[in-house]
Amino acid sequence: MATRIRLGMVGGGNDAFIGGVHRIAARIDGEFDLVAGALSSTPEKAKASGAVLGLAPDRTYGDFREMAIRENRIKDGIQAVSIVTPNHVHYPAAREFLKRGIHVICDKPLTSNLPDARKLVKIAEESGALFVLTHNYTGYPMVRQAREMVAAGDLGELRVVQVEYAQDWLSTAVETTGTNKQSEWRTDPERTGAGGSTGDIGTHAFNLASFVTGLEVESLSADLDSFVEGRRVDDNGHVMLRYTGGVKGMLWCSQVAVGNENALKLRVYGTKGGLEWAQEDPNYLWYTPFGEPKRLLTRSGAGAGDVANRVSRTPGGHPEGYLEGFANIYAEAARAIRAKEAGEDIPADVVFPNVQDGLKGVAFVDACVRSSARDAAWVKLAL
Amino acid sequence: MATRIRLGMVGGGNDAFIGGVHRIAARIDGEFDLVAGALSSTPEKAKASGAVLGLAPDRTYGDFREMAIRENRIKDGIQAVSIVTPNHVHYPAAREFLKRGIHVICDKPLTSNLPDARKLVKIAEESGALFVLTHNYTGYPMVRQAREMVAAGDLGELRVVQVEYAQDWLSTAVETTGTNKQSEWRTDPERTGAGGSTGDIGTHAFNLASFVTGLEVESLSADLDSFVEGRRVDDNGHVMLRYTGGVKGMLWCSQVAVGNENALKLRVYGTKGGLEWAQEDPNYLWYTPFGEPKRLLTRSGAGAGDVANRVSRTPGGHPEGYLEGFANIYAEAARAIRAKEAGEDIPADVVFPNVQDGLKGVAFVDACVRSSARDAAWVKLAL
Amino acid sequence: MATRIRLGMVGGGNDAFIGGVHRIAARIDGEFDLVAGALSSTPEKAKASGAVLGLAPDRTYGDFREMAIRENRIKDGIQAVSIVTPNHVHYPAAREFLKRGIHVICDKPLTSNLPDARKLVKIAEESGALFVLTHNYTGYPMVRQAREMVAAGDLGELRVVQVEYAQDWLSTAVETTGTNKQSEWRTDPERTGAGGSTGDIGTHAFNLASFVTGLEVESLSADLDSFVEGRRVDDNGHVMLRYTGGVKGMLWCSQVAVGNENALKLRVYGTKGGLEWAQEDPNYLWYTPFGEPKRLLTRSGAGAGDVANRVSRTPGGHPEGYLEGFANIYAEAARAIRAKEAGEDIPADVVFPNVQDGLKGVAFVDACVRSSARDAAWVKLAL
Amino acid sequence: MATRIRLGMVGGGNDAFIGGVHRIAARIDGEFDLVAGALSSTPEKAKASGAVLGLAPDRTYGDFREMAIRENRIKDGIQAVSIVTPNHVHYPAAREFLKRGIHVICDKPLTSNLPDARKLVKIAEESGALFVLTHNYTGYPMVRQAREMVAAGDLGELRVVQVEYAQDWLSTAVETTGTNKQSEWRTDPERTGAGGSTGDIGTHAFNLASFVTGLEVESLSADLDSFVEGRRVDDNGHVMLRYTGGVKGMLWCSQVAVGNENALKLRVYGTKGGLEWAQEDPNYLWYTPFGEPKRLLTRSGAGAGDVANRVSRTPGGHPEGYLEGFANIYAEAARAIRAKEAGEDIPADVVFPNVQDGLKGVAFVDACVRSSARDAAWVKLAL
Repeated sequence: MATRIRLGMVGGGNDAFIGGVHRIAARIDGEFDLVAGALSSTPEKAKASGAVLGLAPDRTYGDFREMAIRENRIKDGIQAVSIVTPNHVHYPAAREFLKRGIHVICDKPLTSNLPDARKLVKIAEESGALFVLTHNYTGYPMVRQAREMVAAGDLGELRVVQVEYAQDWLSTAVETTGTNKQSEWRTDPERTGAGGSTGDIGTHAFNLASFVTGLEVESLSADLDSFVEGRRVDDNGHVMLRYTGGVKGMLWCSQVAVGNENALKLRVYGTKGGLEWAQEDPNYLWYTPFGEPKRLLTRSGAGAGDVANRVSRTPGGHPEGYLEGFANIYAEAARAIRAKEAGEDIPADVVFPNVQDGLKGVAFVDACVRSSARDAAWVKLAL
Repeated sequence: MATRIRLGMVGGGNDAFIGGVHRIAARIDGEFDLVAGALSSTPEKAKASGAVLGLAPDRTYGDFREMAIRENRIKDGIQAVSIVTPNHVHYPAAREFLKRGIHVICDKPLTSNLPDARKLVKIAEESGALFVLTHNYTGYPMVRQAREMVAAGDLGELRVVQVEYAQDWLSTAVETTGTNKQSEWRTDPERTGAGGSTGDIGTHAFNLASFVTGLEVESLSADLDSFVEGRRVDDNGHVMLRYTGGVKGMLWCSQVAVGNENALKLRVYGTKGGLEWAQEDPNYLWYTPFGEPKRLLTRSGAGAGDVANRVSRTPGGHPEGYLEGFANIYAEAARAIRAKEAGEDIPADVVFPNVQDGLKGVAFVDACVRSSARDAAWVKLAL
Repeated sequence: MATRIRLGMVGGGNDAFIGGVHRIAARIDGEFDLVAGALSSTPEKAKASGAVLGLAPDRTYGDFREMAIRENRIKDGIQAVSIVTPNHVHYPAAREFLKRGIHVICDKPLTSNLPDARKLVKIAEESGALFVLTHNYTGYPMVRQAREMVAAGDLGELRVVQVEYAQDWLSTAVETTGTNKQSEWRTDPERTGAGGSTGDIGTHAFNLASFVTGLEVESLSADLDSFVEGRRVDDNGHVMLRYTGGVKGMLWCSQVAVGNENALKLRVYGTKGGLEWAQEDPNYLWYTPFGEPKRLLTRSGAGAGDVANRVSRTPGGHPEGYLEGFANIYAEAARAIRAKEAGEDIPADVVFPNVQDGLKGVAFVDACVRSSARDAAWVKLAL
Repeated sequence: MATRIRLGMVGGGNDAFIGGVHRIAARIDGEFDLVAGALSSTPEKAKASGAVLGLAPDRTYGDFREMAIRENRIKDGIQAVSIVTPNHVHYPAAREFLKRGIHVICDKPLTSNLPDARKLVKIAEESGALFVLTHNYTGYPMVRQAREMVAAGDLGELRVVQVEYAQDWLSTAVETTGTNKQSEWRTDPERTGAGGSTGDIGTHAFNLASFVTGLEVESLSADLDSFVEGRRVDDNGHVMLRYTGGVKGMLWCSQVAVGNENALKLRVYGTKGGLEWAQEDPNYLWYTPFGEPKRLLTRSGAGAGDVANRVSRTPGGHPEGYLEGFANIYAEAARAIRAKEAGEDIPADVVFPNVQDGLKGVAFVDACVRSSARDAAWVKLAL
């Protein structure tokens, strides 16, 4: 095992769910060492959080720009940075690191608005550094398996895509209670962007469907709602999709669907077969060849192929979960970073969502908001 | 037990799946005796089928009109008739019986077109006879349970409805093979109506959602497809629904979703709870009060109330299925017929889909077809 | 369709769960007409029940012997009788009909004790009449499918059988409350026999395993308990089984397993594959060929063969349940009776549990009780 | 976060499934740093494996004794060691570290035979060091939840325990093919011990049942088999259990149950309720209070309490798996080690299987083997 990649983190202080997830994901395979951080926009909190995480005081920064500048100068400065802030900070933070050649691993959605997304694409493409977007659900082995099967033609020509992502944690106006920081920024259009559920989870659903099918959306029709009184962003979205080649899709995202924890589910149907995968039971992939019994493919078990097995750590029946799927994005990033730093080509089998995928996600949110404002008119993604 | 109700049947000869279902449904509770039939539009087949079913030769008719006339005249003629023909015959057949005061139990959709549906409503309302539409899924005990819970406010104010009905038996152009009669008329616009999957199964999904929630659709936006080359009606429909009171819904119907046999599924979400029911596992109803664990209510078991138990025949854990659910429609019809014939009011707890529900179903298909033709514009039901 | 078979019933008056089930099962396929009954051991109740069921007063008997004698004499007397009494009445009642050549359809277990069972075998074998035992779970299409697959060698050589039947309705001393007739006789050794859960449901589990595998038990070791204070028969049984050919099994039956309604489940493992079937979800059969993904075979759907399809009434995805499975026993009985009465051989594909299967069941209970009394010593079935 | 605990490893070189698992488990929470290893019994392999893992050459040992001696002497030597060898090495290896005060985290079963187990108990008790046995399934949050609920009396007085652990990877004589190292030592009585499936997985099942219920086995009756020809240890075990207080249990372990990957499942029934947990779907716990609907408790979701939540990392609906459960054992070990090294009491809520649990497991295997040799006679555990 080569030396660990030196990693910094922007955001992810106390109260920050996703920061902890990124840290575990970075640790699982032993490929990264977290050595620096600008963990909060409040310098005091940033320091306190750094201490809790065992960062050296001189690498605990009060500001991401300061961190980018200094880490770029010092010997053994960070090679990569994880950006796990609220959405509106993704762009300014990523910019600082990318332009200094520091690889960026950024949480989704790419940015809180489309102009930022476009600028970030440009910056990323001009940078020598990598940009990895943590649409983490693409890291699940059985999602990779599904993608491989679609690509191999096991489903024949695709016809229908059904994707949904349902939660219930925003069923009440929890953002007004002062007890739930997550809900505050995730329902604040300044920080989260113009889309609520569409941005927070709809982008995952949209990305997952694209990742597995390889299809691009031509246009969509969206009917968004804010069911909770006073909520400033959508908390439920109904979307009809028209993909290239005449494939049709439906996408449902909701954060007010009582009884759903984190129910991301994808179903794909083609002329020759169907697939079904659900995030809450991620070690299984249902596959039905037309006219034959349903088959339950299992991670690292019967029916799982090389592509899935490469990103599995344990044998079938030993369930892997959210953190392992997330860690696969980090593991892929590590492989890409090592290749890059060695001046080699990134191996062809390295797969991770990138800045272009991020742009599509932000364009998806933008299109949903535009369509819904026009009574669910068909709109194109403004790519 | 009172004397059995004398029943006739129109359609339901050989090769007719749904005729056999109606006959079993009529027999299960011992409330009906099938004594007459015009079982095929081909007189010869009608006779042969009558013989197989043990009907007396003089009550085996070659024509439904002839049957209506004669049965109306003879002593101990039929009291009710089941109409189980292709859709386009529903209207002319039902008319003959209704105007002679013979109760009609008719398969769905009500008619193959909206004008017929409107006329039938008028005839039914002017007739002294009952009109029962076999949206059989409303007969399932746990569907009744769901309806009762929504009505009782267990879900709070409703917000979102997700309903889908997926099959795969029309994934190929089976209607061109000459081997599948069902597929022939069900894909022939002359016989089935302008909607394919929307009419054949979408109406069930639409009706189920309405039945459980008590909501009316204000407008809908539909994107219909005929994926199989040469098919003359839709085989996949994506529909966004706007219900009264701001409730939003999505409806998916498909007969090309490979891997789905008869996957009708309803999910309803309100401010206080959620419900989920799936036709293929009909003895279960998932109920989640907000913030509490999911509960698995079981037919005749814990969590099932009087409304469900009244239409159950066996204790929890002894699964009932499609035929028992269907039989519940017949059992309700029997109660209504007995009351009617005794000159009494129909008991308040008798529940069955009626001609108005049928009209709504046909209007749903009509609206889907109109909307889809206008690029999924929002349209109202033409009631 | 030929004329319906004239059926009588012994037992099955008010409060009798299983009587109603037999009546529906006899009706579903239109093969039987219930025309006579001795529906209760109390003549008054017998009359009242007969009236409710619409039996003619002169064919409503106060006593099964009287019924057997008279029905045997009259023109168009019953051709078959269903015996649905508490267990201890099975023998004396069956005897009266068998010796008069009237076919018997009898609920399980065969008798309440082994001597009666042996005598009944002899009487049945000497009678020209048929004896059908309603181990109704053998009527499920997917159970037939499983049996066929084992016989065809799809599982290779069998190794392990796991069968269980768990309920919870006797978790408390409900038999002492005066509110539950079922529990009273089913926990009374005089009426139910020496085994409680072993007799009531263990025999079903035992029979199901034998039916599917074709194996005979060589010896068993049983540890029985009466967990509810004061209960006079076992309410939980743990049994290890040794089948012919070195196959090993475990059987668990319980009526105090809280959370279980009617959880009969069978798993069979051989060198080449495994099978799993659960009564509460009877339309599915899991099949795993070694080294391949699990396959979900569905009734009338993909993977179901002729043997299962012959006893199915509806297409895949239209669930059948307990009553249809039960009705299949009646349908098989009807075929056998019609052949018999026509002087023909019973068709080779007619399958139903018979008096020998019943004897094995009673011997199973007897062996469990003997083994448990000797500290779970291995004992042989006293066949 | 305090400095990481310095960890060594014995065993776990190439081809060693469980070594990799321990390493990930040690990394997930960032509590340990692997700094030394005697990774193979072949010195050459040990070196190569050390290099792959990035260990310093001078801390890559060819022998565990050498490692124990040197690490005990050097500054910043290891504080704890993970022993992940075949079973027969557990005792000699653990002894070397324990007697030098180095904490031991040891894979299960404790030892390959009962005398070793007894000696190890004595050594561990005399040592100042901790002994942690990785019955990792006790680390799953919902297993902790189940245990808490039993202890809190939610199930009332316990009556019945059903536990099983089924796999199929030894369905053929894979140990003779030269391609599967795991199977070689796990079927070799010299290395694995007298029990095959009983030792390898039966001990897990046995431990899990005890962990959740708090019950001790008084005696057991076991019927073991080696179904695969030539196999020298059992590959299927049927066991009846008698727990203290009259509770009865059944345990099934099998490595030839085709279609099962790693199907460990526990069901517990008491007077007031029942629980069900399955390792392959570990984020769920079914709970049924008597007479109420089943409830699906979810990890970090509704129904999960503090005890479960403390050992969870992600919110409900974000599945955790085998590695996180395993990591919980390491996290508990870390807390205990830190307390110990700080001279403090181990916090009362730290929970991990210890050497006494290990002894019970080995005694369980010993009892199974003795019982089976005596035709499944009841035997006591030789504790």
